[in-house]
Amino acid sequence: MENVVIVGASGYTGRELVKILTRHSKVKISAIISNNNSGKFVWELYPDLKGLCDNLIFEKYDRMSLLSRGDIFFYALPHGISMKYIDDDFLNKKINIDLSADFRIKEKFIYEKWYKNVHIHSEYLEKAVFGQCEINRALIKNSKFIANPGCYATSMIVPLYPLMKENLIDLDYDIIIDSKSGVSGAGKKLDNMYLFNEQNENFLPYNPLGHRHIPEVVEFLKEKTDNKISLTFVPHLLPLTRGILSSIYIKLKEKISLDKIKEIYNQYYGNEFFIRLLDKLPSIKGVAYTNFCDIGFACNEDAKILVVFCAIDNLLKGASGQAVQNMNIILGFDEKEGLI
Amino acid sequence: MENVVIVGASGYTGRELVKILTRHSKVKISAIISNNNSGKFVWELYPDLKGLCDNLIFEKYDRMSLLSRGDIFFYALPHGISMKYIDDDFLNKKINIDLSADFRIKEKFIYEKWYKNVHIHSEYLEKAVFGQCEINRALIKNSKFIANPGCYATSMIVPLYPLMKENLIDLDYDIIIDSKSGVSGAGKKLDNMYLFNEQNENFLPYNPLGHRHIPEVVEFLKEKTDNKISLTFVPHLLPLTRGILSSIYIKLKEKISLDKIKEIYNQYYGNEFFIRLLDKLPSIKGVAYTNFCDIGFACNEDAKILVVFCAIDNLLKGASGQAVQNMNIILGFDEKEGLI
Amino acid sequence: MENVVIVGASGYTGRELVKILTRHSKVKISAIISNNNSGKFVWELYPDLKGLCDNLIFEKYDRMSLLSRGDIFFYALPHGISMKYIDDDFLNKKINIDLSADFRIKEKFIYEKWYKNVHIHSEYLEKAVFGQCEINRALIKNSKFIANPGCYATSMIVPLYPLMKENLIDLDYDIIIDSKSGVSGAGKKLDNMYLFNEQNENFLPYNPLGHRHIPEVVEFLKEKTDNKISLTFVPHLLPLTRGILSSIYIKLKEKISLDKIKEIYNQYYGNEFFIRLLDKLPSIKGVAYTNFCDIGFACNEDAKILVVFCAIDNLLKGASGQAVQNMNIILGFDEKEGLI
Amino acid sequence: MENVVIVGASGYTGRELVKILTRHSKVKISAIISNNNSGKFVWELYPDLKGLCDNLIFEKYDRMSLLSRGDIFFYALPHGISMKYIDDDFLNKKINIDLSADFRIKEKFIYEKWYKNVHIHSEYLEKAVFGQCEINRALIKNSKFIANPGCYATSMIVPLYPLMKENLIDLDYDIIIDSKSGVSGAGKKLDNMYLFNEQNENFLPYNPLGHRHIPEVVEFLKEKTDNKISLTFVPHLLPLTRGILSSIYIKLKEKISLDKIKEIYNQYYGNEFFIRLLDKLPSIKGVAYTNFCDIGFACNEDAKILVVFCAIDNLLKGASGQAVQNMNIILGFDEKEGLI
Repeated sequence: MENVVIVGASGYTGRELVKILTRHSKVKISAIISNNNSGKFVWELYPDLKGLCDNLIFEKYDRMSLLSRGDIFFYALPHGISMKYIDDDFLNKKINIDLSADFRIKEKFIYEKWYKNVHIHSEYLEKAVFGQCEINRALIKNSKFIANPGCYATSMIVPLYPLMKENLIDLDYDIIIDSKSGVSGAGKKLDNMYLFNEQNENFLPYNPLGHRHIPEVVEFLKEKTDNKISLTFVPHLLPLTRGILSSIYIKLKEKISLDKIKEIYNQYYGNEFFIRLLDKLPSIKGVAYTNFCDIGFACNEDAKILVVFCAIDNLLKGASGQAVQNMNIILGFDEKEGLI
Repeated sequence: MENVVIVGASGYTGRELVKILTRHSKVKISAIISNNNSGKFVWELYPDLKGLCDNLIFEKYDRMSLLSRGDIFFYALPHGISMKYIDDDFLNKKINIDLSADFRIKEKFIYEKWYKNVHIHSEYLEKAVFGQCEINRALIKNSKFIANPGCYATSMIVPLYPLMKENLIDLDYDIIIDSKSGVSGAGKKLDNMYLFNEQNENFLPYNPLGHRHIPEVVEFLKEKTDNKISLTFVPHLLPLTRGILSSIYIKLKEKISLDKIKEIYNQYYGNEFFIRLLDKLPSIKGVAYTNFCDIGFACNEDAKILVVFCAIDNLLKGASGQAVQNMNIILGFDEKEGLI
Repeated sequence: MENVVIVGASGYTGRELVKILTRHSKVKISAIISNNNSGKFVWELYPDLKGLCDNLIFEKYDRMSLLSRGDIFFYALPHGISMKYIDDDFLNKKINIDLSADFRIKEKFIYEKWYKNVHIHSEYLEKAVFGQCEINRALIKNSKFIANPGCYATSMIVPLYPLMKENLIDLDYDIIIDSKSGVSGAGKKLDNMYLFNEQNENFLPYNPLGHRHIPEVVEFLKEKTDNKISLTFVPHLLPLTRGILSSIYIKLKEKISLDKIKEIYNQYYGNEFFIRLLDKLPSIKGVAYTNFCDIGFACNEDAKILVVFCAIDNLLKGASGQAVQNMNIILGFDEKEGLI
Repeated sequence: MENVVIVGASGYTGRELVKILTRHSKVKISAIISNNNSGKFVWELYPDLKGLCDNLIFEKYDRMSLLSRGDIFFYALPHGISMKYIDDDFLNKKINIDLSADFRIKEKFIYEKWYKNVHIHSEYLEKAVFGQCEINRALIKNSKFIANPGCYATSMIVPLYPLMKENLIDLDYDIIIDSKSGVSGAGKKLDNMYLFNEQNENFLPYNPLGHRHIPEVVEFLKEKTDNKISLTFVPHLLPLTRGILSSIYIKLKEKISLDKIKEIYNQYYGNEFFIRLLDKLPSIKGVAYTNFCDIGFACNEDAKILVVFCAIDNLLKGASGQAVQNMNIILGFDEKEGLI
């Protein structure tokens, strides 16, 4: 049994990691770090986990102790904090999977512009492998340092990759991405906006055209496909807890039939367990509480307009599920272990 | 007091008409028609209306009797049914407000193509005035026959009209409209898809690129602005009861500042009570249970991409509220009567 | 037009007062007090009210100015705060309607025990009339100082009063009241418990056997019926915004038929507009966004057990709606004014 | 690997069985029966299961074929139907777990009175073991025929059993049980009452005092404790999908401290993995999507009134989860297998 350390476990993604890893047959959680909750049992903070990890106690971060106690480190920390925990010892000796944005973007200045934060470890940026499992599996397999993708980013990258790789998109047009996320996507924030009475029976756009997941999508897809896209991206907040559905509007270079489009996606993802190409349209209900990524299509062939719909659970395929999938890839486990 | 007849009052829009009109100080409901429920008190079908209209009893349709008992006729009937009730007597002597799609589209063949239904009274198509109150008020005022707009259509037409009238849109690009509607938008249908367990905690697209509200938007805007747009329209179903929010992605002909855009909208709608131009982004919660239409903006000036957000209550400004607003205009009442 | 001042208007009940009073034809809001929001337009805090009260600006409390500007004062303040604003000038010259608990309980020590707060104006306790409109109308009519009932309290008092007045309850048994409230019942509190992700798809009891609405129910019913009940009261939190449903389990002294029970309720409330005695069971949907109080019954005649169900909108009949109804009674207006 | 047959798999409990059993490491689904859906892949009916059981095809019931293909038979059928599939061959050779009510009640006439249905196999009633795992484990272990308890029944029996076994309840008083269930409790019924627009933002009682789960609770507890209780039971419908919370009001024979009460429950359930005795109050969110049964308490010691709260997921501990737990007990597997 490999030993897993979860650094920063008081948010929603940390909690999902605990839920997944207590079910995982090949690893065990050897330490769980939350400076604010140190000394508490995990089930005191998360009563629904009682019975599943009763001996697990939040600890303060203690570098030396953890170096000896963990093989795999998940960092479920806010942006700007994860980077403080990474150093050569960890990068050389441990498997590191960072769920924050700190190492997703290779260009220091782009990170700093979007996250309004000085990057104190930009020398490690090149070492981090972007952890979109299905597209980057070959690199992930040989890496010990994963930058796990953002939730919205995952729901854009997976559907866009085959079209860009095959050069099918008319890049003179912006790609329009209208995304809708459940409230857990905002994390565990005590803010008036996230009160029940505010979001129940409500729906609204937020942060239009300026969301921070844009640069990781553009940069990663450029790296993998040599195509540079312009994104018009507007996220919206749904009155439900878990799930993202992105509706992606694409101008095609030339007229292609929907059948041909589906054939292409099938070449890329037909053998992927966690990517399901549907004959109908995806829904959030179809993927909530799972690590699946469901994709469906609509096409106006004459107008050369393709709409791709992509649904994921933001906390699983969009965060902790993909993080564990990355760990499974690196350690040579069945990729589904702990995730079904 | 003018006498109102509601023909077809067993659906959601009929029910909203009853709620509005029982509060209206200048009209009274003289008859309410539902062949399926004839003989029942209205409060038996709608217990929440008990106390508000206790003597109102559903009747079977009886043309002669109704001709003598009503001044204003609202038709809250399914598409294809409303048209059967319209004839010269009604058109000449009564005020007729049809909430169905039967008379919204002027071109018979376009109606028949989209609604898969033979139009048996196409000779009346030209007589019907499209009832978007704020844009078409001058014609409405002098009409006795209103085709009340569809709910999605309202949420598109109001925000698009100023841009098209001012010739600001680059018509080489499709206008992308990503709309989200509460479940009441589907009407009162007993269908597995609309069960609580299906839609609760769910979100999904439906009928992409082929929704029937497209032709009325394109035709009405062409008539009013001489511009013909191509629409890529995808509706989605929200896990809430009431409200529509449409996110509209527009390529501008040339670079315009967001301030200038707002100034233009202000010229068109600055004096309109029911259209609110917001400095922030609209939300469904802000308009639910009201007849307001809230509009907000985001703009990528360099890319010449404008996003306009429009929120309405689908049953009020998107149906029964606008229908009563049309009646108020025709009869010279305060437009807000019954609606605030 | 009488002039209304709302003191403390930044919570949910204050907001409902604004919504009701802007529609009221016989009064106008002359001042609205919120020390925290002074200087802001009301629509800045409540964007959904834009268009309805555009000139209304939150002010700091200024006793002298308000004494000259208001005829009716609503206090929508937290418990312990309202009492600070009451003095002889206000009690003698103005109509005062307090939505807090400060003057509901006549016994100073009981108030102080349950609210853990020293009562600084206990000399006024006897002057306040408990504002359950239907039961206490005669006293309300001649009063200038109303203690508006709590939301849960209303949902208990209305159904219990006829049974107690008629001496039908076996008082050797506790009355069991299992109440369920929407999240707005907790007010506008920024607390982890009220985050969307906590309450959505959730349901739980809270504060069992010790809720503060118990003493006002017991005391008021004793005063009106000379019977003293023991209450076992457990409130629960529902995953919806508005509404309370209380299920009340009563042991009857002797066997009575359900028809007889209904007849008795009809004697008490048959002519009350806002109390609806149903033949079926009440639901929250039937009363949400209305000032109605719906009552229904189930009875095990042999076991002499009666269950009475009572549903109200906690913000209307349970707070601001009843407050305005009280004002209407005092000023001799139609009781329904502003409330339908 | 043992072979499992699911008879009647088109409802919610059948679907949960599929989800649990595809994850179970010691059994596999060898056949899945749905006369209405025969020939369809399971994922066609349940798209969210795609990837998990792709070769599984609904079949028509074929007794001879199934006798040779299955070791364990789950009957997820409506009441009155299950009984038709049970015969001596199955009872002698197979493990049979019936999720319907057909064999829960030992007295034929009581079954027939409550279910308004002739029992065609009352000779088997005595053979069926009531499948409340924690209380009846010893009998279950040696049985091949389990009557799996109802969802509401489970949420009553587990909390009542220790009190009754210890003779702590004053049986002169009815036990009041106020239960609240998510909409999935009603099964997959196409009925106006279960439409999204009806239940969203709604809450209501239904079927008060007459729900069919009463007799199995009374009979089973009498059998196990020799005490006969009277139940006043009112179920209510919650606007959420999964979960039941029952609030149980009990008059104690004598004054007992809450600590003592907790000690007693700890004796009964302290070692049970799936029963969690909480220091705080249980919530539906704490048990949804799990097989846990959470119990919490409130006590008015002076009044000798105890309130016990019990929360379960109606589809898991309340149906399919407990059914699989029963199978695990019979086959000697780890009871948690497939259930965490």
